[in-house]
Amino acid sequence: MDAEQKQVSSDSGAEAAAGFFPLDRFNAFSDGVFAIVITLLVLELPVPPSTAPILPALAESWPDFLGYLISFAFIGGIWISHAGLTRYMRRGDVVSFRLNLVLLLFVSLLPFSTHLMVAHMHGADASVAVAIYGLNLFMESALITALMHHAAHDRHLVVDDVDDARVSRAYRQRRAYLVATALAIIVAFIVPLAAVGIYIALAVAFLIQPLIGMWRRQ
Amino acid sequence: MDAEQKQVSSDSGAEAAAGFFPLDRFNAFSDGVFAIVITLLVLELPVPPSTAPILPALAESWPDFLGYLISFAFIGGIWISHAGLTRYMRRGDVVSFRLNLVLLLFVSLLPFSTHLMVAHMHGADASVAVAIYGLNLFMESALITALMHHAAHDRHLVVDDVDDARVSRAYRQRRAYLVATALAIIVAFIVPLAAVGIYIALAVAFLIQPLIGMWRRQ
Amino acid sequence: MDAEQKQVSSDSGAEAAAGFFPLDRFNAFSDGVFAIVITLLVLELPVPPSTAPILPALAESWPDFLGYLISFAFIGGIWISHAGLTRYMRRGDVVSFRLNLVLLLFVSLLPFSTHLMVAHMHGADASVAVAIYGLNLFMESALITALMHHAAHDRHLVVDDVDDARVSRAYRQRRAYLVATALAIIVAFIVPLAAVGIYIALAVAFLIQPLIGMWRRQ
Amino acid sequence: MDAEQKQVSSDSGAEAAAGFFPLDRFNAFSDGVFAIVITLLVLELPVPPSTAPILPALAESWPDFLGYLISFAFIGGIWISHAGLTRYMRRGDVVSFRLNLVLLLFVSLLPFSTHLMVAHMHGADASVAVAIYGLNLFMESALITALMHHAAHDRHLVVDDVDDARVSRAYRQRRAYLVATALAIIVAFIVPLAAVGIYIALAVAFLIQPLIGMWRRQ
Repeated sequence: MDAEQKQVSSDSGAEAAAGFFPLDRFNAFSDGVFAIVITLLVLELPVPPSTAPILPALAESWPDFLGYLISFAFIGGIWISHAGLTRYMRRGDVVSFRLNLVLLLFVSLLPFSTHLMVAHMHGADASVAVAIYGLNLFMESALITALMHHAAHDRHLVVDDVDDARVSRAYRQRRAYLVATALAIIVAFIVPLAAVGIYIALAVAFLIQPLIGMWRRQ
Repeated sequence: MDAEQKQVSSDSGAEAAAGFFPLDRFNAFSDGVFAIVITLLVLELPVPPSTAPILPALAESWPDFLGYLISFAFIGGIWISHAGLTRYMRRGDVVSFRLNLVLLLFVSLLPFSTHLMVAHMHGADASVAVAIYGLNLFMESALITALMHHAAHDRHLVVDDVDDARVSRAYRQRRAYLVATALAIIVAFIVPLAAVGIYIALAVAFLIQPLIGMWRRQ
Repeated sequence: MDAEQKQVSSDSGAEAAAGFFPLDRFNAFSDGVFAIVITLLVLELPVPPSTAPILPALAESWPDFLGYLISFAFIGGIWISHAGLTRYMRRGDVVSFRLNLVLLLFVSLLPFSTHLMVAHMHGADASVAVAIYGLNLFMESALITALMHHAAHDRHLVVDDVDDARVSRAYRQRRAYLVATALAIIVAFIVPLAAVGIYIALAVAFLIQPLIGMWRRQ
Repeated sequence: MDAEQKQVSSDSGAEAAAGFFPLDRFNAFSDGVFAIVITLLVLELPVPPSTAPILPALAESWPDFLGYLISFAFIGGIWISHAGLTRYMRRGDVVSFRLNLVLLLFVSLLPFSTHLMVAHMHGADASVAVAIYGLNLFMESALITALMHHAAHDRHLVVDDVDDARVSRAYRQRRAYLVATALAIIVAFIVPLAAVGIYIALAVAFLIQPLIGMWRRQ
């Protein structure tokens, strides 16, 4: 083993001795959960039986495809926020690892909430189903905000030259999401489909933004 | 923490402050989605019931195995193109992260389209099923091309010594895929099984090529 | 290729020639299995049919949600222990790779044991179901302890400056888990629901701890 | 960006320009597929219905658990061989990427072959089912051997100081697996359960070896 590698090893030992955890496993495990959850959603899409005409059958199950798209956009959005956060982190501690697990708990519940909302969208209990979905989105946003707070309050976890303007913009964006999803939960009890409209608006805004970004640069 | 590690951390902070995202999470998340989608396909393969003779039962469900092989080849092909692209990238930005998410949306829809095509291959609506499958392949190709365009047009995202000959060959290959899948969509409305033949030809070409490559070297 | 990269390559060849395995694949594969198992659990959660009122239906299937939470907490806990262990390792050998596989065997059995416990919690065979679940947790703890022992006894696998106080704390924690799960197995044959209570207590302690950690720092 | 990082980027561009692919995505994608396949196996395990006594029900479905253990051991074994191989590689090319995809095709078919063998182990067509399982194992071994050959024959892919003794031992081990699985395929047509015995012997040898390794060191 050459000197440099030894140096790195010793450092990692010293880091560990001080109670820090390396970020590589934090990221790998999180990326795994995000990737699986976003892919599991497709298992819920109903394939029309081989005797039925396809297009009317697909049109009839539009809530499934809508739920798929919304959940895909939200999981993707949380994932990008997560990657955006860990850019500024240089290591983790046991608290950030566990907070992250609670965040991933709500991420991995999303296929369930999606299925619930889709199955009940036209039923008698649509309000409850749409509100539970919103609560799931709200908890995700709340926990990634908690993770940001924890990292920001422990100077040992973040890199030195954090861009304050960018960080406060990220906070504003998170707060906007929290307000929007809290609003959707309330709206769900008055007009459930209007709450679904809020989810769609947030998801579309997220998915269309890159195209606008590409347009502007050209 | 030694000086070198600090240096790297500071750089990553500066990179982040300039709005760039590291590629490691981009790759890890993408590899996760590709790996899950390519493996989920196996869940669709029907196991003959324990009382039936196996070989006739397997022979009868040949469309399932055909769909499995074609989709495996296409996901594998897109994955290699993706790895081939990120070789030339040194970092990402928020636009490339989101474009990648839209690409992965169509990748993760492929088990659904495969199931749809297989279930309807002999039915009255074969044209529609085969065309939807082709549309899914077309969108995958279109989005990885868009990702290549975006990376190529932003000099901050790519490494300095990009091999122009290789890049233009990759573009030509992408364009050939786009034309072939667009053609298959049109053919699907005339002779659906001929469009399936185009998919098979593309998949076989992809899977056999390495064997030719090995042969030549020896 | 520059000199430094060549150096690294040669080192990795020399490492391999001495029978060592790099940790990156050890970690990537383990993180993949942990992430998939923790996410597969959600597939077991029953979505109330579209005609039933949601809240009573969810309340009735509380054992499913309880099993989900407990298993999530235990898999998360084992994962953090695993990441905590590999912090001190600088490479692996074939024995640690295989021991890890046996550990992952019991990790990947947890969705099965969870499903079994949940389905039989109110049945005639509750004792057996609850004890099998405890046995699964016990084996997980036993194998990560074996992995710690193996790494600690081979000086080539660990970094130089291991923090002894922290390591012996980790051993104590593991032993406490072993005793608690062994106790739960015995209790399962007397009062099955009391054993479930032990699982809940361990899971809650694990999930609540980060909040206490955050509180203290502020 | 500091000079060193730029250097690495330029190198990666030059590597790419010469047609080489980085190993990190090769490994990440492969680890993902291995991890998913080994975990999907658990979905096939039947949970006894809540009214049935558990232990007799589990005892009756012993072929499922046997198939689970054998397949787990084989996937784990192939994964360790794969990690053992890439230790000696310093980069990939398009042929190794595609050969690897064909290897992963057979890896991802294993849950299907396992399910087939388990469902037909006591049926009239046991020979065919057991032989197909053996063929799947054989193809896995054949393809990882082909991958080893390809890497060994292209000096640009491997590190400089390959340990010849260790490599030829790996080849011998692979050849032994090929012979054993070919033998099992033949035996399957005479006494199917004897072929299952060969699979068990190979799997047990693999799973028990680490315990012997631990024993010896102490």
